Amino acid sequence: MINRNTSYGDDSPIAALATTPGKSALSLIRCSGKGTLECAAAIFSAPEKLLQAAGNTIIHGWIVNTENKDRVDEVLVSVFRGPRSYTGEDSVDISCHGGYAAGQGVMAALRAAGFRDALPGEFTFRAFMNGKLDLTRCESVMELVSAKTEISARHAIERLSGVLENEINAIKQKLVEVLSGTEIFLDYSEDEISASADEIAGRFPGLLPAQETLARLRKLAESWQRERIYQEGILAVIAGRPNAGKSSLFNLLLKEERSIVTEIPGTTRDWIEAWISIDGIPVRLADTAGLRESLDPVEKIGVERSRDLLEAAELILYLIDGTAGITDEDRAFIAALPPQKPLLILWNKADIAPVQEFSRIFSHKEHGEHGDTEEKRSRAVNFEITRSSFSVPSCPLCPPCEESRAKSFLGISAKTGEGVAELTAAITATMGTQVNAADTAANAGLGTIRQKNLVEAAAAALEEAISLANREEPLDLIAPLLREAVNALGEITGEVSTADILEEMFSRFCVGK
Amino acid sequence: MINRNTSYGDDSPIAALATTPGKSALSLIRCSGKGTLECAAAIFSAPEKLLQAAGNTIIHGWIVNTENKDRVDEVLVSVFRGPRSYTGEDSVDISCHGGYAAGQGVMAALRAAGFRDALPGEFTFRAFMNGKLDLTRCESVMELVSAKTEISARHAIERLSGVLENEINAIKQKLVEVLSGTEIFLDYSEDEISASADEIAGRFPGLLPAQETLARLRKLAESWQRERIYQEGILAVIAGRPNAGKSSLFNLLLKEERSIVTEIPGTTRDWIEAWISIDGIPVRLADTAGLRESLDPVEKIGVERSRDLLEAAELILYLIDGTAGITDEDRAFIAALPPQKPLLILWNKADIAPVQEFSRIFSHKEHGEHGDTEEKRSRAVNFEITRSSFSVPSCPLCPPCEESRAKSFLGISAKTGEGVAELTAAITATMGTQVNAADTAANAGLGTIRQKNLVEAAAAALEEAISLANREEPLDLIAPLLREAVNALGEITGEVSTADILEEMFSRFCVGK
Repeated sequence: MINRNTSYGDDSPIAALATTPGKSALSLIRCSGKGTLECAAAIFSAPEKLLQAAGNTIIHGWIVNTENKDRVDEVLVSVFRGPRSYTGEDSVDISCHGGYAAGQGVMAALRAAGFRDALPGEFTFRAFMNGKLDLTRCESVMELVSAKTEISARHAIERLSGVLENEINAIKQKLVEVLSGTEIFLDYSEDEISASADEIAGRFPGLLPAQETLARLRKLAESWQRERIYQEGILAVIAGRPNAGKSSLFNLLLKEERSIVTEIPGTTRDWIEAWISIDGIPVRLADTAGLRESLDPVEKIGVERSRDLLEAAELILYLIDGTAGITDEDRAFIAALPPQKPLLILWNKADIAPVQEFSRIFSHKEHGEHGDTEEKRSRAVNFEITRSSFSVPSCPLCPPCEESRAKSFLGISAKTGEGVAELTAAITATMGTQVNAADTAANAGLGTIRQKNLVEAAAAALEEAISLANREEPLDLIAPLLREAVNALGEITGEVSTADILEEMFSRFCVGK
Repeated sequence: MINRNTSYGDDSPIAALATTPGKSALSLIRCSGKGTLECAAAIFSAPEKLLQAAGNTIIHGWIVNTENKDRVDEVLVSVFRGPRSYTGEDSVDISCHGGYAAGQGVMAALRAAGFRDALPGEFTFRAFMNGKLDLTRCESVMELVSAKTEISARHAIERLSGVLENEINAIKQKLVEVLSGTEIFLDYSEDEISASADEIAGRFPGLLPAQETLARLRKLAESWQRERIYQEGILAVIAGRPNAGKSSLFNLLLKEERSIVTEIPGTTRDWIEAWISIDGIPVRLADTAGLRESLDPVEKIGVERSRDLLEAAELILYLIDGTAGITDEDRAFIAALPPQKPLLILWNKADIAPVQEFSRIFSHKEHGEHGDTEEKRSRAVNFEITRSSFSVPSCPLCPPCEESRAKSFLGISAKTGEGVAELTAAITATMGTQVNAADTAANAGLGTIRQKNLVEAAAAALEEAISLANREEPLDLIAPLLREAVNALGEITGEVSTADILEEMFSRFCVGK
C-alpha cells in the first residue's frame, strides 16, 4: 500500500539522487522500500538477473524507458537484501553517469516504475525505525555530510561509530540503577515500610554516586561549545587601517593554511572572504574594506558593512602597520570594540619594523582613562599571546598597573611569513578548542544542539534530585526527577521519541540520506 | 613498476573522487589498476574479506588511517575483478559519506596506501586501451556527463551503445572492399598486367558504389551541426525597447519550459540569464538591460554589454510593444543587426493589441531605402514564422516587392501565455534541429568536432579518389587516397591512433571518468 501522504511513516519504495548534481564522472541514486527489486527490475535490461541477485552483489546493465524502449543510461546496480542494508529494507544503489541529464533520466524512469521521491533524511529515518542506527548516529551522518575539515569529520565519525551512544547509555544505566533503588522503596513504602521520609532518604545510598554522573553530564554538555566550533566554524575578520597589510595577511593565510572547498551562500558582499582550516577549525576568514571614516557615500556603505561584519565576527585579527606604529585611529578602533570580542592584535611588517613595547602603545595615562573594569579584564586575556621575549612593565587597559606581566603584540610579517605558526597557535588558543584535545580523542562530545539541550535537561533534573536528597526530602519527590533525567537521555539516542520530534529532526537532513 | 611521470601509459593503482564534491548524502571514489585490491585492503577494516571477495560483490566496513588507527569513514566497497570492470583492470568503487571532508579523508588514506590521483579521463583511457570501449564510446561518456537536456543525453547514450561505432565501421568496410580491389590491381599491374591506366580504371568497378558511401559520409558530417546545438546549447537573447515586456517574456519562458540546472561560469553580468530546455535544445536565455542609448556613464556600460551579448547571440527574440506599435527605435535596432543573425520578431501584448499587418510596419518606402541585397534576403528567411492567417502584400526590407509572400510577426502575450507554443516551435524551426528528427532517432550522429573533422577528411579523400577515377587516372594515385579515407575513419574509433592524439583527447575529460 502506497501512502499518498508521503510522510515518513510508510515503507513504500523511495528513490533519490544521493550525490551532488554536477559535471562529474558518476552519480549515485539510492532506492529502498517494499518492492524495490521488482520495481527496479521493471526498467532494467536484465530483470531476471536483478530479481535473482543475492544481496551485496552488483549487476551491470541498462535502465530502459518502458514506454518507448529507449535506453536511458548504462548503469551498475548494487543489490542489498534487507535486513542487510542501510535502511534494513530491500534496497538498490544505481551508479549511473554523472552530469545533469543522466541522473534526471534515471530518476524519471524510477518514478514511472513506482518509486516516489524520498523525503529529506528518509533513508536514515528508516534505518532508525528498523533499529540499524540510534539517533546520535543518525545525527552524526548528517554532521559528516556537512563537515568542513577533516577534524570536524573525525569527530562525527567517532559519534557514528557509537562513542556518544555508548557514553549516553552508560550514564543512563547509572541513573536507572539509582532510580530502580528509589522505586523499590516507593513500591513498598506505603504498605510495608512505615519509616518516615527522612529515614528512607537516609537509608538510600543510591544518590551518592549520582554526583559523579552529574559531573559526567556537565562535561558532556560543555563539549558542545567546542564541537560547535568544529562543525560550524568561526568568522574571523581581518581589520586595520589602510596599508596595514590586511590583503597580504589574507592571501598569506590562504596560501599557508589549507583552504576549504565549501559553499558560501551567494550574497553580495563588500569584502573578500574564504574558508580555511586552522588546525582543523573551519575559519571563514574575511578581509574588511578600509575602515577609515569617509564622506563618500559609496565608501560609507562599505564602512558600515565592515562594522556589521565586525559585530558578527567571532575573532578579530587587528593589524597594526609596524612601520607607522600605533596611531590614534588604531587606539580608537580597539577601544570601540565590544569588550568580550576575542581579539588578536598583530604587529605587521615585523621583518622591517620590530615589535614595540606594549607600554609605549597603551600608556598609563590611557589606562587610567579606560579604567579597569571587569569587561576590560576579559579582553586582556586576549593579549596573552607572547612571542617576543621582552616584557613590559604594565598593561594599560587592564589588569591593574600593580600586576606586572610579560605581554606583547604578536609580531608577524605578511610579506615573509614570519610569525604565521605563532598566529595559528594563538587562534586555536583563543578559541579554546585545543585545551580539551586529550579529551577529544577519548570522547567525541556532543554533535548537535538537540543533544546538548537534552543533556542539560538531564543534568538539571539530576542536580535537583541530588539537592532534594541532600535535604532529605521524600523519595516520591526525587524519583520523578530521576525518571525525567533518564527520559531525556533516552530521547538523545531515540529510545524515547515521538513522531513529531523525529519528523522535525529528519526533515533537516538532505535528500538521499 | 610505478611510472613516476604519471602519464596515461601505466597500470599503476589510481584513485579519484567520481562525484561532485558538495553537501550530498554520498560520494563515490573510484580506484583501478594493478594491486588495487591489496592497496585498498591495507586501509580497510576487514582486509581478508576484501582480498577474498568475488568480483561484483559489495563489502561493508571502515576505511582506517593506518598510522593512528583512526576510523576515516564507514563505507561500502564494490569489488570488480578484471577483465569484468569498467577499465578491464581490478577495480574498487568506494561509496563513502557525502560532504567535503569524508571524501577528502578517504582520498588521503588511499594516497597513503599507494594510489596516485587519476589523471582526467584516465579510467576511460584504460577502458579504451584494454579494448572495453572504442573512441566514439569514450567520447560519448564525456558527452553524457556534460549533457544539458534529456535529448542531449539520449543522443550520447545512442553513441555509447555503439550506434556511431557501427556506422563508422560499416562505412569503413565498404571503403576497405574498394581499396582491396585497387590493391590487387596494384600488386599485379606492373609485372603482369600490361593494360594502360585507363584500361585498369575502366575495368575496375569498385569506385561506383563509393558514391553512395560518400553521400553517407557527408550526411554524417552534417549531423554535427545539429548535435552541437544539443550538446552546447544556444544563446538566445531577448531584446526590445523598455516596457516591451522583456522581463515578462523571460519569466514566462522560465515557467513554461523546463529550466535546466547547470553551471554558468561565475562572471559579473549586467543581464539576467537562465538555461531552459526548448524541445530538448538547451537554451541559455538572456534578458538584456535596456537598449536605449544613454548619456549616463553607468547605464552606457550596460548598453554596451547588451550589444556584446547581441553579437554573441545565436538567436534574437526581438519584442515589440504591441500597444505602442513599431517605433523608429525598433526599426533602427532591427536594421542594425548583423543580417545572418537568426531573428524572431515577437509582437507582444497581442491579447490587448492585435498583431498589425507587416506592410504597415516596414513600408515600401523603407524597403526602397534599405535596398534588397543578398544579405537582407537571408534575414528575410527568419520572418517566415507565420501565426496569424492574414497575408501582407510585400516584404519591406526584402525580398523584392514583386514577391508577395504571406508573413507576419508572431503574436504573443507574455501576460496570458498566448503564443508560447508557437514561439517554441518557431525557435526549433529557426535552429534547424527539428528537420532531421526522423534521422536522429535512427542515427545519433557525430558527437565531437574531432569526429566531424575526421569524417570530413575521409569524405574529401574519397571525393578526390572518385574524381580521379572518373578522369581515369592511374590506380596508384587513387589507392593512397582511399587508404587515407580508411585511416581517418579508423582514427575516429581509435583503431588507428597515436599516443599524442589519445593523450590530448583524454586530458579534456573530467577526473574520475
